Amino acid sequence: MRYAVLGTGIVGRTLAARLDGLGHPVVIGTRSPEATLGRAEYAEWQEVHPRVGLAGFAEAAREGGTLVNATGGRSGLAALSAAEPADLDGKVLLDVANPLDFAGGFPPLLDPVNDDSLGELLQRTFPRLRVVKTLNTMNCRIMVDPTLVPGPHHVFLSGEDADAKRSARTLLHAFGWEDPNILDLGGIETSRGTEMLLPAWLRLMTTLGHTDFNFHIQGA
Amino acid sequence: MRYAVLGTGIVGRTLAARLDGLGHPVVIGTRSPEATLGRAEYAEWQEVHPRVGLAGFAEAAREGGTLVNATGGRSGLAALSAAEPADLDGKVLLDVANPLDFAGGFPPLLDPVNDDSLGELLQRTFPRLRVVKTLNTMNCRIMVDPTLVPGPHHVFLSGEDADAKRSARTLLHAFGWEDPNILDLGGIETSRGTEMLLPAWLRLMTTLGHTDFNFHIQGA
Repeated sequence: MRYAVLGTGIVGRTLAARLDGLGHPVVIGTRSPEATLGRAEYAEWQEVHPRVGLAGFAEAAREGGTLVNATGGRSGLAALSAAEPADLDGKVLLDVANPLDFAGGFPPLLDPVNDDSLGELLQRTFPRLRVVKTLNTMNCRIMVDPTLVPGPHHVFLSGEDADAKRSARTLLHAFGWEDPNILDLGGIETSRGTEMLLPAWLRLMTTLGHTDFNFHIQGA
Repeated sequence: MRYAVLGTGIVGRTLAARLDGLGHPVVIGTRSPEATLGRAEYAEWQEVHPRVGLAGFAEAAREGGTLVNATGGRSGLAALSAAEPADLDGKVLLDVANPLDFAGGFPPLLDPVNDDSLGELLQRTFPRLRVVKTLNTMNCRIMVDPTLVPGPHHVFLSGEDADAKRSARTLLHAFGWEDPNILDLGGIETSRGTEMLLPAWLRLMTTLGHTDFNFHIQGA
């Protein structure tokens, strides 16, 4: 499967590197490839990961068989709006992002929140995509290697399409997640629950002084 | 220590029964004691717990050395407004409630949320109280007996006053919580994080089909 990972930040790069390491062709999508390559941090990372492609959002969405939203905040909406609608048709979108709004500083607020979620907003805006919200409740290093946190801990799935969730689950297995630690919460509406874990996650990060932790539902 | 538990629902009764079992004098606060005793469910419970008192909110707040907000939604605001301000002076308020708004059905929304929380709202409205948000992230049976969920799992503390948090911790110990499983997140602002765990908790309840689970922060 060819993956298009939208977003050039640490989350996008971590996911792209892991997918590449698993042998998948990967292209990273960005607003402007020239600007991205002009960032020393990205250029250095690119040298270490020469097989990972870089393209504008539209081209990445065309090339990817499965799309991953790893952009910050609500930027996934703009990124996917750059794609030709036909290039989204029937594709799975793994939405690992959270609608964090840092306008007021740290800790950020969520927007949308409570009666809506980024997962739902993406599914509503791009009905041809099959959105699966997952992996958004932990640091990106743990997303792609759950053994970084010893002991059992959970990853959640939210989405309307059972086949899309099966394909997400297969990728989670490849990352190292085992079925007892994958909790399917139901439809995309349940993204509200997992996105709203972020305020606690951010305060736990502050309290603990590290990000090598994850939510485990004891008794599940 | 004499406790006043505000709220006659299952949460209030469960906490009152446990406090009574631990040998503390307990009075339950309600809007109208007559109406409460007129409910068969409450009257039957009262027969089984004859030592637990019942009083109007103002009288309960006067009698209690430590107050517990176990009312539903935002009702704690009205309950505490019924008290004489002098009867709140310097007292610890353990706020175990969540501002769930069921006006739109299930699952409920949170109000306030995101840029405010019930814990903060109570502390702001009643600055003479020393509010400690705790125990709001689990079923009430687990609040008072964490061994109901096998294995380690967490309870959180949020509040401005270190002494108040120490006294909350002492009560948590009496309920069976051990220090490694008590996570002090900091000031009352961190209530936003723990109250916003509720949407996930509610969807987990639906998915799992039971309430004998709790959040564990693996790697904390």
